Amino acid sequence: MSTSTTSPVTPSELSQLLEKYRGFVEDKLFPIDLDVVKGPFRSFLPQLHSLREQAKTMGLFAPHLSPEEGGLGLTLVQFARVSEILGQSPIGHFVFNCAAPDIGNMELLHMFGSASQKSTWLGPLQKGEIRSCFAMTEPQLPGSNPVHLATTAVREGNEYLINGHKWFTTAADGAQFTIVMAVTNPEASSPYQRASMLIVPLDNPGFKLIRNIPIMGEAGEDYLSHAEVKFENCRVPASNLIGEEGQGFALAQERLGPGRIHHCMRWIGIAERAFDMMCKRAMSRELDIGKPLAEKQTIQNWIAESRAEIKASRLMVLDTAEKMQELGAKAVREDISTIKFFVADVLMKVIDRAIQVHGALGITDDTLLSFWYRHERGARIYDGPDEVHKSSLAKSILKSYQKKANG
Amino acid sequence: MSTSTTSPVTPSELSQLLEKYRGFVEDKLFPIDLDVVKGPFRSFLPQLHSLREQAKTMGLFAPHLSPEEGGLGLTLVQFARVSEILGQSPIGHFVFNCAAPDIGNMELLHMFGSASQKSTWLGPLQKGEIRSCFAMTEPQLPGSNPVHLATTAVREGNEYLINGHKWFTTAADGAQFTIVMAVTNPEASSPYQRASMLIVPLDNPGFKLIRNIPIMGEAGEDYLSHAEVKFENCRVPASNLIGEEGQGFALAQERLGPGRIHHCMRWIGIAERAFDMMCKRAMSRELDIGKPLAEKQTIQNWIAESRAEIKASRLMVLDTAEKMQELGAKAVREDISTIKFFVADVLMKVIDRAIQVHGALGITDDTLLSFWYRHERGARIYDGPDEVHKSSLAKSILKSYQKKANG
Amino acid sequence: MSTSTTSPVTPSELSQLLEKYRGFVEDKLFPIDLDVVKGPFRSFLPQLHSLREQAKTMGLFAPHLSPEEGGLGLTLVQFARVSEILGQSPIGHFVFNCAAPDIGNMELLHMFGSASQKSTWLGPLQKGEIRSCFAMTEPQLPGSNPVHLATTAVREGNEYLINGHKWFTTAADGAQFTIVMAVTNPEASSPYQRASMLIVPLDNPGFKLIRNIPIMGEAGEDYLSHAEVKFENCRVPASNLIGEEGQGFALAQERLGPGRIHHCMRWIGIAERAFDMMCKRAMSRELDIGKPLAEKQTIQNWIAESRAEIKASRLMVLDTAEKMQELGAKAVREDISTIKFFVADVLMKVIDRAIQVHGALGITDDTLLSFWYRHERGARIYDGPDEVHKSSLAKSILKSYQKKANG
Amino acid sequence: MSTSTTSPVTPSELSQLLEKYRGFVEDKLFPIDLDVVKGPFRSFLPQLHSLREQAKTMGLFAPHLSPEEGGLGLTLVQFARVSEILGQSPIGHFVFNCAAPDIGNMELLHMFGSASQKSTWLGPLQKGEIRSCFAMTEPQLPGSNPVHLATTAVREGNEYLINGHKWFTTAADGAQFTIVMAVTNPEASSPYQRASMLIVPLDNPGFKLIRNIPIMGEAGEDYLSHAEVKFENCRVPASNLIGEEGQGFALAQERLGPGRIHHCMRWIGIAERAFDMMCKRAMSRELDIGKPLAEKQTIQNWIAESRAEIKASRLMVLDTAEKMQELGAKAVREDISTIKFFVADVLMKVIDRAIQVHGALGITDDTLLSFWYRHERGARIYDGPDEVHKSSLAKSILKSYQKKANG
Repeated sequence: MSTSTTSPVTPSELSQLLEKYRGFVEDKLFPIDLDVVKGPFRSFLPQLHSLREQAKTMGLFAPHLSPEEGGLGLTLVQFARVSEILGQSPIGHFVFNCAAPDIGNMELLHMFGSASQKSTWLGPLQKGEIRSCFAMTEPQLPGSNPVHLATTAVREGNEYLINGHKWFTTAADGAQFTIVMAVTNPEASSPYQRASMLIVPLDNPGFKLIRNIPIMGEAGEDYLSHAEVKFENCRVPASNLIGEEGQGFALAQERLGPGRIHHCMRWIGIAERAFDMMCKRAMSRELDIGKPLAEKQTIQNWIAESRAEIKASRLMVLDTAEKMQELGAKAVREDISTIKFFVADVLMKVIDRAIQVHGALGITDDTLLSFWYRHERGARIYDGPDEVHKSSLAKSILKSYQKKANG
Repeated sequence: MSTSTTSPVTPSELSQLLEKYRGFVEDKLFPIDLDVVKGPFRSFLPQLHSLREQAKTMGLFAPHLSPEEGGLGLTLVQFARVSEILGQSPIGHFVFNCAAPDIGNMELLHMFGSASQKSTWLGPLQKGEIRSCFAMTEPQLPGSNPVHLATTAVREGNEYLINGHKWFTTAADGAQFTIVMAVTNPEASSPYQRASMLIVPLDNPGFKLIRNIPIMGEAGEDYLSHAEVKFENCRVPASNLIGEEGQGFALAQERLGPGRIHHCMRWIGIAERAFDMMCKRAMSRELDIGKPLAEKQTIQNWIAESRAEIKASRLMVLDTAEKMQELGAKAVREDISTIKFFVADVLMKVIDRAIQVHGALGITDDTLLSFWYRHERGARIYDGPDEVHKSSLAKSILKSYQKKANG
Repeated sequence: MSTSTTSPVTPSELSQLLEKYRGFVEDKLFPIDLDVVKGPFRSFLPQLHSLREQAKTMGLFAPHLSPEEGGLGLTLVQFARVSEILGQSPIGHFVFNCAAPDIGNMELLHMFGSASQKSTWLGPLQKGEIRSCFAMTEPQLPGSNPVHLATTAVREGNEYLINGHKWFTTAADGAQFTIVMAVTNPEASSPYQRASMLIVPLDNPGFKLIRNIPIMGEAGEDYLSHAEVKFENCRVPASNLIGEEGQGFALAQERLGPGRIHHCMRWIGIAERAFDMMCKRAMSRELDIGKPLAEKQTIQNWIAESRAEIKASRLMVLDTAEKMQELGAKAVREDISTIKFFVADVLMKVIDRAIQVHGALGITDDTLLSFWYRHERGARIYDGPDEVHKSSLAKSILKSYQKKANG
Repeated sequence: MSTSTTSPVTPSELSQLLEKYRGFVEDKLFPIDLDVVKGPFRSFLPQLHSLREQAKTMGLFAPHLSPEEGGLGLTLVQFARVSEILGQSPIGHFVFNCAAPDIGNMELLHMFGSASQKSTWLGPLQKGEIRSCFAMTEPQLPGSNPVHLATTAVREGNEYLINGHKWFTTAADGAQFTIVMAVTNPEASSPYQRASMLIVPLDNPGFKLIRNIPIMGEAGEDYLSHAEVKFENCRVPASNLIGEEGQGFALAQERLGPGRIHHCMRWIGIAERAFDMMCKRAMSRELDIGKPLAEKQTIQNWIAESRAEIKASRLMVLDTAEKMQELGAKAVREDISTIKFFVADVLMKVIDRAIQVHGALGITDDTLLSFWYRHERGARIYDGPDEVHKSSLAKSILKSYQKKANG
């Protein structure tokens, strides 16, 4: 895992790398990604693993990891640039083994895992031999208020006894382990110090995958799914605790910081591909002979506004990544909230305009637009609904005015 | 079919009827409709047909038809009021046998069908014994410019030979016949007089249902599907022509007029149910104990704006229906364009807000919101994209300024 | 004052009346209104009073008053239709003596004034011999929370001693009296029963007009002004109290109900004229020879959206007026909030689009658009900011859900 | 004039400079700028000139000029940073002698002026001894299509004879000379090679300042005004031609490139100050005791959205300035269009929200918000309406798709 702010990759090397990633994505992923997302996903696994091997051979695999871990040692900002390119295909991050939730779990275990956790779980994860998931959100409690957790992990001797109900445990289907957020210290004075993170192997008899939740018309499977799961008297060794008891939220914050950069750059990649599809359609669809849709001013407006908004998104995310790299995640909390709601909104607007330009074709599954329209609608909800980020950004800004008034 | 502007139903009888429809929909349809749309649709057909029998028994079946035809003889405006209530459930119009495309075909055959067409097709359709579809849109040509049609019907002796490729032929799967729009008079001077409408039984060997198009993640089946179909040397008796040769567009216009009223009222029904779900969720979901989402001003804004926009929609559609009833479809072309883009936009905004209020639940298929978010996205596209209606409304308005300037 | 729900004016007479008002406004007011608003207003008073005489001669004066009071006896709904026409000119309501704040004061005194108040103040006001104003908003306290009032009226013997600071006392400059809202019963248990309304003649030595507030670049004068005023040991006879002590808010609510209908219809009138200017400009301004702005799809979109939004506004306001006429102001509180924020928003959007279509000309004072852009910006603020109305509408709706949950 | 891409000012020196500018603007301009814009402007000239002297003494005057010309030698990007700070006060750029239209004329004469033009006009302009203006827009022809010009300059011997009608000649009142755009070569094959730029001293008897156009309620005067002017048989020496005949548009493009950067950064400065006023008001205005407006989520939304949009604006403008500095104005035409419409829109949205947060106070002239609401409305119109920039951006983007399709 590369968390360094210096990189073995120079700017001009990065430019060459970006071209290679772009070539790989356009040549090898674009031709198949629509079929893959139509599924069934598992039937494509051999093909996807073969692409992973090609990525390794070309020295492009796991760009976020340090060279020692089999990666390229990119900084956060450099990886962000790669991430936008990978994001243009719904299978981009998966093929290069830097997809959520695995990448977040890799970052977490890299920073806070014990030596044994690293050798058992992190190593195979980094090599792409296994997959993982992250069980945090609970169906009965608002995810936007993370101190509300009903799942408990009670220390009994050398074990933790876990009980609870989670959902939106992304990609649990087919994963080897999950990291679960559970209350271990209900009596802690601060609600932010009550929960801990624990590793649970999914073959544990106390773990139940209830269903892949049907989301926007599809339950999906394997990597492309979101599970509802239960922990019922699920026992794990105490050594499966990550970090210290009560550190759950602190670790989650660490995990979310770069995670939002990753999401935002992936969204920008999607927006760029939708934009490209919109332009191609505008040029090729003729209303009358020689009269392409592109001549319509409304469509020109959408193209111009989309270009402006995508550009604004990219500059803001890269600016935030630079600051985070330099000053840490805490220093850029306002920026993180800003890009979360700004880019999610831009993403959905661009997808919506691209659909409208495609007309009836846009609502079929014959293009990727339908997939994104459905599967990225969650972008305005997960990792904190936009409304929560707006409020917290505003409150943070206004706090400085409070200080001025009081000072 | 009731096309009269007088109705056997008095205002106070209508109020009672509306209550009965509301009761039926809430008591008998709400409990099952989410399951029905999850499908498979065919497995629910026995249950749905039993509901139709109940509707008949209660004197509520086919409200749009004249009493002689087994209906209630409602006027367009009265039916619009019923239609809003039925629209609150995705199976409402189906159960009462007034769903598109059947209702449009009933209107068409009622007004322009020959005696033989009426007895063969219209009768069983009105009784709900068979289903029908309407093949107009073509994949290679913009539906927004209806004079572009590649499908041809060539008169050969006592037959028409039909060849062509259509899609978005709603509910073709399981239907007994389609009405197809095809060019019969390519040499006609006006492009609006080149096409005709013909009846094609779907067991005709020249008809091929290629696929139920996967739309927004679902191909669906039976009534809940949109087919891609081909006519390959498909021969039908000349007597299957509806009206005269070259009347295709004129008839389509007649069909679309009330059709848009029906759609808009159905959309308002959906919006009302989504609104209701949004309010209930806002009241029941607590962010903290005793702190429901409803206390958040952003959510209050969405509720207030949705209420205003739905009310505006209803008043405009009813106003248009009244004028259409009185003055005919041609006289309200501007109003029809207005409600088409205004209500479609309101519908999608209300659904989107309701989803956001539901958070993660909103993107699952555990509520109807996901179904509507996906299946009503087309509302801004079919029957003419909103952009086309805006331009044509504006041009019509500006034409009157031209006259003033010239006069 | 006509508060009856029956009118001496039949529907067909109303149609004729509306034509007469339209003719008067277009022929006599449109040619001069731009000059009048450029001012100085007082220099136009003789001309405006002459127009009032013509209105009287033609039987069009004071349409809101009963025939006995010199008016036409129109119902609220009928007057609303007239009001839209008058609103197309910034001097329309003034000429016909039905402009705010006079019309509100007439309604108030008609319903709650004593015989002596009626003969002294109401009579001359109805005849247009004097003008009045209404002093409610205070600079230091939020107008959106009307129970906050710092102005006091202390009963001393047969007099009230008034002290306080008000602003946005519209048209105080040149008025003969004001109605002032002041706290008379600070100890009342309900904050809604602490204030009263009193009549203060403006030649009272305790009344000071501090300034006509410069608003959006103009202080204005006379009817076209908004004053900052002070009451300094201002004594009035106890008989100047309107109604009972503590009834201030109850009366204000009565005054605001129809007041918002009046405002909304006036706004719709403005929107219609701005719309008309936009269309004319679009047809006459050529980007290239024979290529008018009207051919641009963006401008077509604005025209179509404006037409839809104005139509929605009108239907909602008339619907609200009908219900208010039938059921009273209290029964339509939700509707009143709805039209307040909906129509104010539409008004500003239509004006803004019309300006943009006019280009550089649109920001000059060479058209009325600049006047409305500036002087109607307050529409989203006065009579309760839009945000307050949205919240109160939503809370009222959600209350019914509370009841269901509890029931 | 500094057009170099290298600067004598290092990054750390720039930081210090920015602090100095910020201090100057906040300490010396904020206390008086509201009064100055209320005017009359001329009465403040002595005070403003004294501030200029202070700026010179502090080494802050004319930051855009090279050290030899009495400036600081800042690059375009460095000046952009300063410009944002100056923009926070409506008199900032004037005091530092870098306000439009003077700055554009300085750039033009610096690059294309003859030695004699430089000594006669540029020198005094750079020192702030005289003012200038720029006469391009014509009332009868759309400014958005600059090849339409009716003003002519006919060569007669050693003179040009100029005739024409212009408006929006900013700051003509009190200026010593104008640069006028006039057709000299009507027969040129390209419409872009027909016009030229000429210097006209304003004491020329053929020049007439018809009026300072009343704009949004104010005609203004001197620097704060926009004139309508006429050239009637106005003769100037042929040596007053700038550059070559027919170069008018080429020069105008050069002038507009950096000009849009300047405008955009000034707009961002305004938006920042309006944002600051909005936050302060939100914290200080209490709806109830201890319940500031800031607690309202709607206001939090506005603050968060404004912060995001301003940040996006700044990053895009600085990015464009960097590219322009490196690659020239032509290479960034798409970016220039992008920032023009994006930032103008953000500016007006932020001002509008700030007004709404101020309530009634926001529409008075007691804060700067009213000034900006009125005087910056033109931002969406001048230098090309937003709609034109959107279309031209889209067409430029789509052209690359054309090439792909053809290649």
